[in-house]
Amino acid sequence: MAADPRFHAGTGPHRLDRIAAAAGLPEGSLAADGARLFEDVAPLHEAGPAQIAFLDGRRHLAALRESQAGAVILPPALAGAVPEGCVALPVASPHLAFARVAALFHPAPAPAAGIHPTASVAPDAVLGEGSEVGPFAVIGAGAVLGARAYVGPHAVIGPGCVFGDDARIHAHASAICCVAGHRVTLHHGARVGQEGFGFTPTPEGRYLTIPQLGRVLLGDEVEIGANACVDRGALGDTVLGPGTRLDNQVQIGHNVTTGRGCVIVAQVGISGSTRLGDYVTIAGQAGLTGHLNIGSKARIGAQAGVQSDVPPGQDVTGSPAMPVKDALRAALFLRKLGARKGAAGPAGAGDLAEQKGPPAGRPGHTD
Amino acid sequence: MAADPRFHAGTGPHRLDRIAAAAGLPEGSLAADGARLFEDVAPLHEAGPAQIAFLDGRRHLAALRESQAGAVILPPALAGAVPEGCVALPVASPHLAFARVAALFHPAPAPAAGIHPTASVAPDAVLGEGSEVGPFAVIGAGAVLGARAYVGPHAVIGPGCVFGDDARIHAHASAICCVAGHRVTLHHGARVGQEGFGFTPTPEGRYLTIPQLGRVLLGDEVEIGANACVDRGALGDTVLGPGTRLDNQVQIGHNVTTGRGCVIVAQVGISGSTRLGDYVTIAGQAGLTGHLNIGSKARIGAQAGVQSDVPPGQDVTGSPAMPVKDALRAALFLRKLGARKGAAGPAGAGDLAEQKGPPAGRPGHTD
Amino acid sequence: MAADPRFHAGTGPHRLDRIAAAAGLPEGSLAADGARLFEDVAPLHEAGPAQIAFLDGRRHLAALRESQAGAVILPPALAGAVPEGCVALPVASPHLAFARVAALFHPAPAPAAGIHPTASVAPDAVLGEGSEVGPFAVIGAGAVLGARAYVGPHAVIGPGCVFGDDARIHAHASAICCVAGHRVTLHHGARVGQEGFGFTPTPEGRYLTIPQLGRVLLGDEVEIGANACVDRGALGDTVLGPGTRLDNQVQIGHNVTTGRGCVIVAQVGISGSTRLGDYVTIAGQAGLTGHLNIGSKARIGAQAGVQSDVPPGQDVTGSPAMPVKDALRAALFLRKLGARKGAAGPAGAGDLAEQKGPPAGRPGHTD
Repeated sequence: MAADPRFHAGTGPHRLDRIAAAAGLPEGSLAADGARLFEDVAPLHEAGPAQIAFLDGRRHLAALRESQAGAVILPPALAGAVPEGCVALPVASPHLAFARVAALFHPAPAPAAGIHPTASVAPDAVLGEGSEVGPFAVIGAGAVLGARAYVGPHAVIGPGCVFGDDARIHAHASAICCVAGHRVTLHHGARVGQEGFGFTPTPEGRYLTIPQLGRVLLGDEVEIGANACVDRGALGDTVLGPGTRLDNQVQIGHNVTTGRGCVIVAQVGISGSTRLGDYVTIAGQAGLTGHLNIGSKARIGAQAGVQSDVPPGQDVTGSPAMPVKDALRAALFLRKLGARKGAAGPAGAGDLAEQKGPPAGRPGHTD
Repeated sequence: MAADPRFHAGTGPHRLDRIAAAAGLPEGSLAADGARLFEDVAPLHEAGPAQIAFLDGRRHLAALRESQAGAVILPPALAGAVPEGCVALPVASPHLAFARVAALFHPAPAPAAGIHPTASVAPDAVLGEGSEVGPFAVIGAGAVLGARAYVGPHAVIGPGCVFGDDARIHAHASAICCVAGHRVTLHHGARVGQEGFGFTPTPEGRYLTIPQLGRVLLGDEVEIGANACVDRGALGDTVLGPGTRLDNQVQIGHNVTTGRGCVIVAQVGISGSTRLGDYVTIAGQAGLTGHLNIGSKARIGAQAGVQSDVPPGQDVTGSPAMPVKDALRAALFLRKLGARKGAAGPAGAGDLAEQKGPPAGRPGHTD
Repeated sequence: MAADPRFHAGTGPHRLDRIAAAAGLPEGSLAADGARLFEDVAPLHEAGPAQIAFLDGRRHLAALRESQAGAVILPPALAGAVPEGCVALPVASPHLAFARVAALFHPAPAPAAGIHPTASVAPDAVLGEGSEVGPFAVIGAGAVLGARAYVGPHAVIGPGCVFGDDARIHAHASAICCVAGHRVTLHHGARVGQEGFGFTPTPEGRYLTIPQLGRVLLGDEVEIGANACVDRGALGDTVLGPGTRLDNQVQIGHNVTTGRGCVIVAQVGISGSTRLGDYVTIAGQAGLTGHLNIGSKARIGAQAGVQSDVPPGQDVTGSPAMPVKDALRAALFLRKLGARKGAAGPAGAGDLAEQKGPPAGRPGHTD
């Protein structure tokens, strides 16, 4: 099935030679097929003769052999496996080539320049040329947006905030105390720049908020996922380096800094003042305590609990986190132990089972 | 205490025979008590003579014996334990019966048909009969809602979206690229249909977004919790089967599919392309990596880390996840080990304690 | 660097004797330095001669020796370590003193009294003196707010809700079925009072929602973090005691109750009907199952999975949670085991590695 035209406008059909050029194939590599017309991209197992599919490895080789796709983007080593009538488009990086071909058929929509009559834009706010401001959006005093900014319905940009060119600030996102580069995206409901969790107990047993006086600085091409949160610095700034991407529901504490190109998957939490180098990858639901240094290109596993520094290039996982090989060895030990009947004594295990119930957290009860 | 009338309008008082009928008791089972009037439902330990309480098992038997409730819904085996003057309403499923009785006293409010003057509704959007659109709601071009839809304040329904009858889209929820069945609920701040976390590195060390060209399909009676996120498919669709319920802050990646009646508790994360069968239960904070198959009626424990397929009907827990009995045995081993003084050598344990600090992640500091 | 004036208006400069008084130093302790003028607060390593810095322990002693700060708030024991020309401001609680000094330079902005013309305020809603209602805010019928309330852009306060004096309800927050004390803060996108996850299966394999008839009660000085969720009670109330603070993305199930001054760090989840005493601390990403009793001053570690009651004053961590010392011993055992080559047999470990891949959950793929 191709993209639903209710949601994704298309520019097709396109000639295969134009598609191949977008995919990065050398000119003239298609011979007679260059003039064939294609209507859209589609998944390998659903694509028809007028659609382009892709695969990136041997895992889907069986699906390739049975595919009805008219052409397939794939690694050169698999080019010989395309079925009769299907054109192979061999490239070194199928994902990258496919992304470019998909964008040929479905370019990101340009903003529809103009300010919706219901939007609330401060008189001294500056909007770059070609910007679109949606219904009920709020842009505060002195805010500055670059060219072709898209500000979705109900988005709130606080006083003094700066966004560069081609910002995409989706519905219900908010940004305060924020200075951002070019091509920055805040997805739906993202929260940027709010007060961090900084307070201190008083002798009377109350808590006093410590004024949070910093900012959030976002490098070029940073993306913040839906309902993710980035607190502003307490003193000094919270900084996300160029190209860093946060998935949905990530939590970034005050004064965290990241280098270039970090990838932080959904539901990760990073506590205050932790510093990431460049190209750090953190898989889903991992948590990092505060004041750590995570070296460049370190990779942190899903659900890891990181409580100490990680050297550059190291892979860690587990909670508490340890090098991946060690964690696998420890996990294997526990798995074997668990599978061995009577290892901990049946009576004891029974007690625990009763206490815990399999699995914990049964929903649906309200008493 | 009964429900606060500022928040929950009531229809009472009702006669006990009507209440018993709602609870599913056979007609005529009440004898003389049928004419007694009851004003509301209430918790067992707070209910008075004009209120209906319930209990579902022996756990609250002591509270039953001391209850002042005028009538109690309970399992038949406990009917003899009601105190003097309290009417027993014995049913096989007390929760279900109580839900129906509570709904008799407090039916879900019907939408107040009409469009708030501040709402922004596209001229070609279609709203079913009896629909209510709240202040500052936004309904995009070509969107179609069925009869009796409720669209709360600030909710955003994107262009082309479809919702069936009796949709409830609460305040601040957003839906784009979404086609939904009947009786679907999006709770406050739920995010449906935004771009998934799909991108690919370029040779220059940047990331290129892969156009996300799919949709979100929601079956009848699906519910999405507050601030939960459901990304649309990359190619093809993200699908939640009929009756599936997501609790608050759940994260569903692109191209995830679920069968019928799955129950997914708060803060669970499911990575892209994982497939759930029917009636899968996932307890709070569990995480599933991508491209897995989880069989029907499998149950996944709280905080489990699932990295491989789960057969139908299997219960797993732990991180990495293993069968529940094995996980309990492994946990018991660790608990016994931990409780044994000197097991790992006091010096070593001391080092670790110093390194980590009990407990990690102390809040409230801002330096 | 001092605070960015685009975002944080300042009241400085101030005389050092006034600053010292705010910090709690006894009058006259400064001698000749009292008349020196200071412009702002700043981090220790960035502060200049006209700025006030602070440190709270020996960890930053090297930074203190090289600091250019004009004055430093610090523990008395470190007062002798300030460099030449820097004034030591010795206090017992540097954090607390710094919070007060920072608030002298940057007091929390008072509401700008008035209702924005785009706000939707019910005719019978009551707003206290000096309240500010921002653009597109919605205040429902019969809602009551105390003096000096701040209601940010797009905030939604449902019918009948009550907030005391000095409420701060930030952009995109929502509250329904909620009764709150004085000085309560809802941060951006916080969700309070929505329906909890309460339903029951029907014989036909569907789920029936159990009417959620309770409220949320918030004590004085409660704070709810950005995108955090607090469900209302099913029957009876969900209650957060005075001074309790929730960080971002915390999830509180129906009928949870906390005592005074609990501190709940980001991404924690607490299931229904669990009860916390006073001053309980829960570190990030921990999860608690339902119906537990957590004693006063208990501390729960990051990512802990708590499935049974915790006595007052006890520190627990791990998943399943156990006393911190035991958990450290168990973790150390696993770490040593993992680091020992061949512990689980190389072949087996290899299998597991292949199955899992280091680290799990690689992002960026869309097939």
